[in-house]
Amino acid sequence: MVVNNKVDSLSYDVEAPPQGAAAAAAAAPPAPPAPARHHAPAAPVTMREGAAVLELHKVSLPERRSTARALRQRLAEVFFPDDPLHQFKNQSSARRLVLALQYFFPIFQWGSAYSPRLLRSDLVAGLTIASLAIPQAHSSFVPPLIYSLLGSSRDLAVGPVSIASLVMGSMLREAVSPDEEPILYLQLAFTSTFFAGVFQASLGFLRLGFIVDFLSKATLTGFMGGAAIIVSLQQLKGLLGIVHFTSHMGFVDVMRSVFKRHDEWEWQTITMGTAFLAILLLTRQISARNPKLFWISAGAPLTSVIISTILSFIWKSHSISVIGILPRGVNPPSANMLTFSGSYVALTIKTGIMTGILSLTEGIAVGRTFASINNYQVDGNKEMMAIGIMNMAGSCASCYVTTGSFSRSAVNYSAGCKTAVSNIVMAAAVLVTLLFLMPLFHYTPNVILSAIIITAVVGLIDVRGAAKLWKVDKLDFLACMAAFLGVLLVSVQMGLAIAVGISLFKILLQVTRPNMVVKGLVPGTQSYRSVVQYREAVRVPSFLIVGVESAIYFANSMYLVERVMRFLRDEEERALKSNQSSIRCVVLDMSAVAAIDTSGLDALSELKKVLEKRNIELVLANPVGSVAERMFNSAVGELFGSERLFFSVAEAVAAGACKAQP
Amino acid sequence: MVVNNKVDSLSYDVEAPPQGAAAAAAAAPPAPPAPARHHAPAAPVTMREGAAVLELHKVSLPERRSTARALRQRLAEVFFPDDPLHQFKNQSSARRLVLALQYFFPIFQWGSAYSPRLLRSDLVAGLTIASLAIPQAHSSFVPPLIYSLLGSSRDLAVGPVSIASLVMGSMLREAVSPDEEPILYLQLAFTSTFFAGVFQASLGFLRLGFIVDFLSKATLTGFMGGAAIIVSLQQLKGLLGIVHFTSHMGFVDVMRSVFKRHDEWEWQTITMGTAFLAILLLTRQISARNPKLFWISAGAPLTSVIISTILSFIWKSHSISVIGILPRGVNPPSANMLTFSGSYVALTIKTGIMTGILSLTEGIAVGRTFASINNYQVDGNKEMMAIGIMNMAGSCASCYVTTGSFSRSAVNYSAGCKTAVSNIVMAAAVLVTLLFLMPLFHYTPNVILSAIIITAVVGLIDVRGAAKLWKVDKLDFLACMAAFLGVLLVSVQMGLAIAVGISLFKILLQVTRPNMVVKGLVPGTQSYRSVVQYREAVRVPSFLIVGVESAIYFANSMYLVERVMRFLRDEEERALKSNQSSIRCVVLDMSAVAAIDTSGLDALSELKKVLEKRNIELVLANPVGSVAERMFNSAVGELFGSERLFFSVAEAVAAGACKAQP
Repeated sequence: MVVNNKVDSLSYDVEAPPQGAAAAAAAAPPAPPAPARHHAPAAPVTMREGAAVLELHKVSLPERRSTARALRQRLAEVFFPDDPLHQFKNQSSARRLVLALQYFFPIFQWGSAYSPRLLRSDLVAGLTIASLAIPQAHSSFVPPLIYSLLGSSRDLAVGPVSIASLVMGSMLREAVSPDEEPILYLQLAFTSTFFAGVFQASLGFLRLGFIVDFLSKATLTGFMGGAAIIVSLQQLKGLLGIVHFTSHMGFVDVMRSVFKRHDEWEWQTITMGTAFLAILLLTRQISARNPKLFWISAGAPLTSVIISTILSFIWKSHSISVIGILPRGVNPPSANMLTFSGSYVALTIKTGIMTGILSLTEGIAVGRTFASINNYQVDGNKEMMAIGIMNMAGSCASCYVTTGSFSRSAVNYSAGCKTAVSNIVMAAAVLVTLLFLMPLFHYTPNVILSAIIITAVVGLIDVRGAAKLWKVDKLDFLACMAAFLGVLLVSVQMGLAIAVGISLFKILLQVTRPNMVVKGLVPGTQSYRSVVQYREAVRVPSFLIVGVESAIYFANSMYLVERVMRFLRDEEERALKSNQSSIRCVVLDMSAVAAIDTSGLDALSELKKVLEKRNIELVLANPVGSVAERMFNSAVGELFGSERLFFSVAEAVAAGACKAQP
Repeated sequence: MVVNNKVDSLSYDVEAPPQGAAAAAAAAPPAPPAPARHHAPAAPVTMREGAAVLELHKVSLPERRSTARALRQRLAEVFFPDDPLHQFKNQSSARRLVLALQYFFPIFQWGSAYSPRLLRSDLVAGLTIASLAIPQAHSSFVPPLIYSLLGSSRDLAVGPVSIASLVMGSMLREAVSPDEEPILYLQLAFTSTFFAGVFQASLGFLRLGFIVDFLSKATLTGFMGGAAIIVSLQQLKGLLGIVHFTSHMGFVDVMRSVFKRHDEWEWQTITMGTAFLAILLLTRQISARNPKLFWISAGAPLTSVIISTILSFIWKSHSISVIGILPRGVNPPSANMLTFSGSYVALTIKTGIMTGILSLTEGIAVGRTFASINNYQVDGNKEMMAIGIMNMAGSCASCYVTTGSFSRSAVNYSAGCKTAVSNIVMAAAVLVTLLFLMPLFHYTPNVILSAIIITAVVGLIDVRGAAKLWKVDKLDFLACMAAFLGVLLVSVQMGLAIAVGISLFKILLQVTRPNMVVKGLVPGTQSYRSVVQYREAVRVPSFLIVGVESAIYFANSMYLVERVMRFLRDEEERALKSNQSSIRCVVLDMSAVAAIDTSGLDALSELKKVLEKRNIELVLANPVGSVAERMFNSAVGELFGSERLFFSVAEAVAAGACKAQP
């Protein structure tokens, strides 16, 4: 039997010392000094209590680290959670060079193993996504080529996405009308794209990729739904053939404009648009019901364009507006259109950051989704750099903001793509179209493009997803609806800001009002669990065991003290009613307290003082490494001392029971 | 032996089913349907594995609550964590009325038991704090009277505090100079005070008191230090006798102004000021060393004022500037000076909110500190209403923002106050001074007031507190220094904003990058603990046990998946090196996961899919009530099923071991 200081203090502290333990402690040889804290773990302490043997285990501390080392590890965890340098360990320098090259240009990694068999798959997939890309031709040429060099996802299909395009349009239109000043509008759009790229690449370079994690899925669901409706409403211009349309994006403005201009409604256009819209929505439904028929909805847009163009060419009706003359040829360089001075710099930077973060969020999420399906990893920060560089290059070649698009990547994946070569194939197909096929689109009616866009964006309205949120998490649903209504009724930026605010508020609320539970012993085990969750759990008489299920911070330290006092009051009332002995000991189960700050430490010592005044002992069970470390670095560690720190609730109860009961 | 669905699935899932278990399952009668989830807990499931008997406990769910009830409980926890209505339970309506009266006017509570013995203590304490209060006479008359009616703290001494006064001065001076437009300045000051009161009272009324919890102690330490230096620098005007002083508050501006105006330095003033400053600082030191001599530093300011006034009266030197004619008489009404229209409304509202929240923070913190020392409770939200109403009343009686002052309350406490009557005594003493003694202060040199203010504020510079922060928590220290330097070099508001930002960022960082640990069995126990903290803990072969020490949110769900995969990679490398069997089963210990949102649920199912592809099983151990509830409300619960949810890590390992080893 090992007896050390701990047992001594345990026996001497007791008001009515238990005969057995006191005798044992007295009979034992003088206790050796307790082993130094940061060395090998102490052997368990055994206490003989009558016939029962109680074995106490010491709370250990993690190995002592220097401040610099602790800081380095913490920073590494924040900025390099994926440990990208792991593969460079224990390699020759030549090998490291190859690995570095492969790291920055993943094409060298998979390129060496590329085979005709893979090419066949990628060819089919590339042509399939090209058919989706042709309406936004320019932006689907340069960026996919760059991405195929730098990107680490095999399934991502690159192109402009509706959210980012919408936000860019909405933000720029507030300052400049694309109809009145088309050149200036283009300049601002390309400059914003450039800033978006710079912002994205710097986020990746600075390893701040975790910022996109703050856009929760709930937020995005609401945001996309609102954005989809806003975009659809804009298409009413084309679908109804209205000439004088509002330049505002809000729901109210657009609806007012639509009904004020009902004299401009064009019935031929409406008939044609509605018919094609119905067909497109039908093909979507068919593909959704039977995923094997994905090619029906994939091919429908291009087919609609061709058929409607032929119809319009035959009719030559003047009441249906057509695209007209399109610039033929490959992307014109637009580096000269980037403007970094003048009164619009702030606007373009703001627009760039906004669209940059939105397109990143979609791109990274899509890349991760398909990577997890196919069981490979994408490096978020590296992807950001790839997307950023792709947008910087794109802004110099007449491209708007591009990213990995969810719908296109899904088509790419289901068409059987194997590598980023499918992006190259798509770019080549777009190139051919740009060079030779553009005149064919002269008679394409604008109403068809509106129908295609509506079909594409209504898919973003995820009613089922919102219903799931309502079922599972009401606050998530609130964030979702706030984003939805904010985008629809106020503005795109405001909607996003409100939703992010609610998401952050939710986190802070959870931190401010952490879960705290009263625990009891589950019969047949040594485990203490919440008496609310496990109704069979039994409270230990004269003990109050409180589990704290959150880090203890300045934001909740006051609440913690108040909540424990309230539990104490309730438990004492309960004990009084059922004639049980009153509470003698409060055990804080710290298992779930991942961290503690200085205010938290102060709260613990305050709680101890307050309880002491009422002759109630406060002990802590199972503090985790960082918390134990911090306690011993402050005066609180001494206040509690090792005799009030226990390995587990069970041991705390066992040791505490020794003291309270003679 | 009880056999139910759970055992069935456990035995049938196995690739190479263990002979014993399979036989037992096959021989058993058809399994009865599993008991409904929300009813009485199931009897533990016993599995016979050869000779060993393995007892499995079911994960329970808390009682099912309706959405409305869950929401009500959640809101109650957020807004009424102190359960203020508890005392009204089971009382007659007459008694309730009395209790309500006592609740809103605590003076009825303690007033009925007031005795001459208490009055003697309060009289001494009240006169002591009055001696501190006379320099800011007007603001120390009406507010303390109101507080003594409404406040629930017995020790709080009410008056203007330096932080709030400083911020108000700094914010108003940016728009209006008090020297050039004194009336307008006063109007704005009183209006700001009124708004501060409205803001404080509404926070309390809306039970949003937890907002002040977001100003952490670290932030306040830095903020007060910076504010103290700023205030001291302002006193250089009086201390050096400079006439043309800058109206800016920043460190750089003030120092530039001081040295540019060195021709205005007044040597008589400087000598007198330095001498009294030295004496005042010395008395502070004496009282700090020996708390029983508190009256030396408490009495020093008034004594200095008296002595210096006499000296100045005798010398009648024109080079030392004196206070001059002071308005005699009780507070003039100032309700007519409140201006709610015009161009300054936004400024006064902003200033009101800022000073309101700052003075609240100090008042509440001081109230709670002394309440915990004397073992009674103050109700934060009610205190806010009391402080708010006191400021609204004060603004109509020529008072600036007032609150519970830390230094004065400390003096009040050490002078032996028992109830809020000490505030009434102070107000009475101030009244006498205002009515009859004001002319005595005609010859008081301004330099003495500067010396008193410097002495008061240097006590706010808490170097030891900052050093403690550095030792215990580097990020807290960073927040502290940011607040300090922000206030000193940029502006008061900016310093506060930066510090609050860092504090919030710290919380979010902890949420984004939660602690995750690999766990092993601590020898001699059934407990699994971090192998980094407990170096004696032993990994279980072919198991990876990961403890997640945070709620799982959208902000960390991606990180969670990546971190588990990285642990897996490391553990597999380790197993390869030491020739152990590779990982077959990942156990996520969910004990410390206090909450989960929809993104977190998705992350769990994604992790399960990814691991399944690698033929690794994912099981969850000990989910807490709300998490288990949410899992079963979503598709994730079905995905895991009850056979992959375990009561504890120990049982998960035991059951998993059955499956992996034939």
